[in-house]
Amino acid sequence: MKIAVDAMGGDYAPREIVKGSLDAAKEYGISVILAGDEERVYYELGGDNAGGLVSVVNAPEVVEMCEQPAAVIRKKKNSSIATVTRLVKEGEAQALVSAGSTGAAMASALLGLGRIKGIDRPAIASLLPAEKGFTVLLDAGANVDCKPHHLVQFGIMGYLYAMKILGVKNPRVGLLSNGEEETKGNETILAAFPLLQKAGINFFGNVEGRDLFRDTVDVLVCDGFVGNVVLKTVEGMATSIFKVIREETTRNRLARMGVVLAGPALKGLQKRIDYAEYGGAPLLGVNGISVISHGSSTGKAIKNAIKVAGQLVENRLVESIRDSIENANIYGAGDRHALGVN
Amino acid sequence: MKIAVDAMGGDYAPREIVKGSLDAAKEYGISVILAGDEERVYYELGGDNAGGLVSVVNAPEVVEMCEQPAAVIRKKKNSSIATVTRLVKEGEAQALVSAGSTGAAMASALLGLGRIKGIDRPAIASLLPAEKGFTVLLDAGANVDCKPHHLVQFGIMGYLYAMKILGVKNPRVGLLSNGEEETKGNETILAAFPLLQKAGINFFGNVEGRDLFRDTVDVLVCDGFVGNVVLKTVEGMATSIFKVIREETTRNRLARMGVVLAGPALKGLQKRIDYAEYGGAPLLGVNGISVISHGSSTGKAIKNAIKVAGQLVENRLVESIRDSIENANIYGAGDRHALGVN
Repeated sequence: MKIAVDAMGGDYAPREIVKGSLDAAKEYGISVILAGDEERVYYELGGDNAGGLVSVVNAPEVVEMCEQPAAVIRKKKNSSIATVTRLVKEGEAQALVSAGSTGAAMASALLGLGRIKGIDRPAIASLLPAEKGFTVLLDAGANVDCKPHHLVQFGIMGYLYAMKILGVKNPRVGLLSNGEEETKGNETILAAFPLLQKAGINFFGNVEGRDLFRDTVDVLVCDGFVGNVVLKTVEGMATSIFKVIREETTRNRLARMGVVLAGPALKGLQKRIDYAEYGGAPLLGVNGISVISHGSSTGKAIKNAIKVAGQLVENRLVESIRDSIENANIYGAGDRHALGVN
Repeated sequence: MKIAVDAMGGDYAPREIVKGSLDAAKEYGISVILAGDEERVYYELGGDNAGGLVSVVNAPEVVEMCEQPAAVIRKKKNSSIATVTRLVKEGEAQALVSAGSTGAAMASALLGLGRIKGIDRPAIASLLPAEKGFTVLLDAGANVDCKPHHLVQFGIMGYLYAMKILGVKNPRVGLLSNGEEETKGNETILAAFPLLQKAGINFFGNVEGRDLFRDTVDVLVCDGFVGNVVLKTVEGMATSIFKVIREETTRNRLARMGVVLAGPALKGLQKRIDYAEYGGAPLLGVNGISVISHGSSTGKAIKNAIKVAGQLVENRLVESIRDSIENANIYGAGDRHALGVN
């Protein structure tokens, strides 16, 4: 298996990207193709290539954060993001990983790999740590304005993701709303509810923000605006809580000692809410595997993103979505169908 | 000053409501009128009336959680929520507090007190603890579908709330979006942005979920669907974090000792994210003061909600909104105006 990695994307590129790629190759035996400014990438590799598992493709064009994503992909064919996408499209790699601009990664996947037939809007699927295991949140930011049937497509893709990648048997899919009752929701949610009931997945009904952390559902469906707000709220709260603990313990010696003793517990907590542990979020619904990593990804995050990409390839998630969506009842017309998986 | 309190609303009514009312009367010298099933309220009072500050009005009709809010208000005129609303409308009390159904409290305020002229959609304003002080989040759940000009009205009300109640000079008002740039947002957010720029308040621009906890803005505007999801996400995460800490420390004796030593720091943190500390969220935009408390309010939450209601009366927030909204430029027509406050 080969994973194409965007060596130039992210706040700590190329250093941390190269580091994470070497670690993934050594730890998981995955072949990695690094696309980026050759000279800088080789410098970071420092002569190491993980026993031949890591190779380099020169992609010297630089993408600026302010550039229009679609224009970048069309004009800068030798940028690192366009290059990793091309490697996947041409079958030289089975998946790509990028910590660069989310917009550019999305545009690149949409234009370069194309949508799976039957999927109108590819969605970003993020994993959030819950009390038991994880909750898949999608769309985590790809589509800010969604129609009810888009949410149904997200539900089907999330269902397959939780089953194939998290190993959940018949995953429970919830619709994120402002109350548990069927009558709760804005116009889009109210219209999506009956469609999800008929979509052939294990639809749980409406769930609330607090259910993200509980063992209520395995998949949480929302539009990309709400998903982005929720994700950044959780991230912000986690950062803020650890900052408060640090500040309080700096002022108080006993408390500081306490935190040292409570270390493993707090570390466990921190680990659970650290995005770097989960590496990256796949863009589901495109004809290929594209894993988008956090802009501030460290080597650890990249290593884990490469691992996630590998799991997506092995478990043939793209093929599953393709097969299931063809037969899916997305618009509420016709009868209940089976996804062929339940 | 007199505050009318719904003695029968909430999971722990009437016991905790009565307890909180007695405490508020004794601690802040506020007169409280308790509306509810006379017999049960007197039983809970146990002969105490805080030196004459607490009185009782009989309101025997019971509202069930499943009843349609508007129907309740029309038909059950002797329910506790209808009674406290009437007391405010008739001037016998200056504000009301209820921990009962949010829908019933809202319907009651809308039908009984009416909207302030110029406000189309009253909004619930919640306080969230930030790194320095608080962030006002509105709408926290009253309106699930909003038009751009509703968000402008929320911005103006939040601005006045932060200024009058939190004492912030020229509060910064942010629009909750999926990115900081002006180009980010769903259709409603994109349309609200230029209107907020012209609304005569200190509009900061778009902010993200993580800014809830930072010192970026004082007021965060969103629709009630997003507000509700964000609020419940924060609440759920706080509950989950303390549960994880408890579990981890039960397994590990050293960690348990650590948590005891770190106690003040963790307690400080818990206090900061405990909704009971803030008591209740006012429904802004109605002709009167209505403070909605959490359904699971304890005596402490009710005591604090009564305190908040008292501050709203003293600082004449309803009058401020009434004066400001009359001159406000909400629809983007005409020139920049001054709210008369900055």
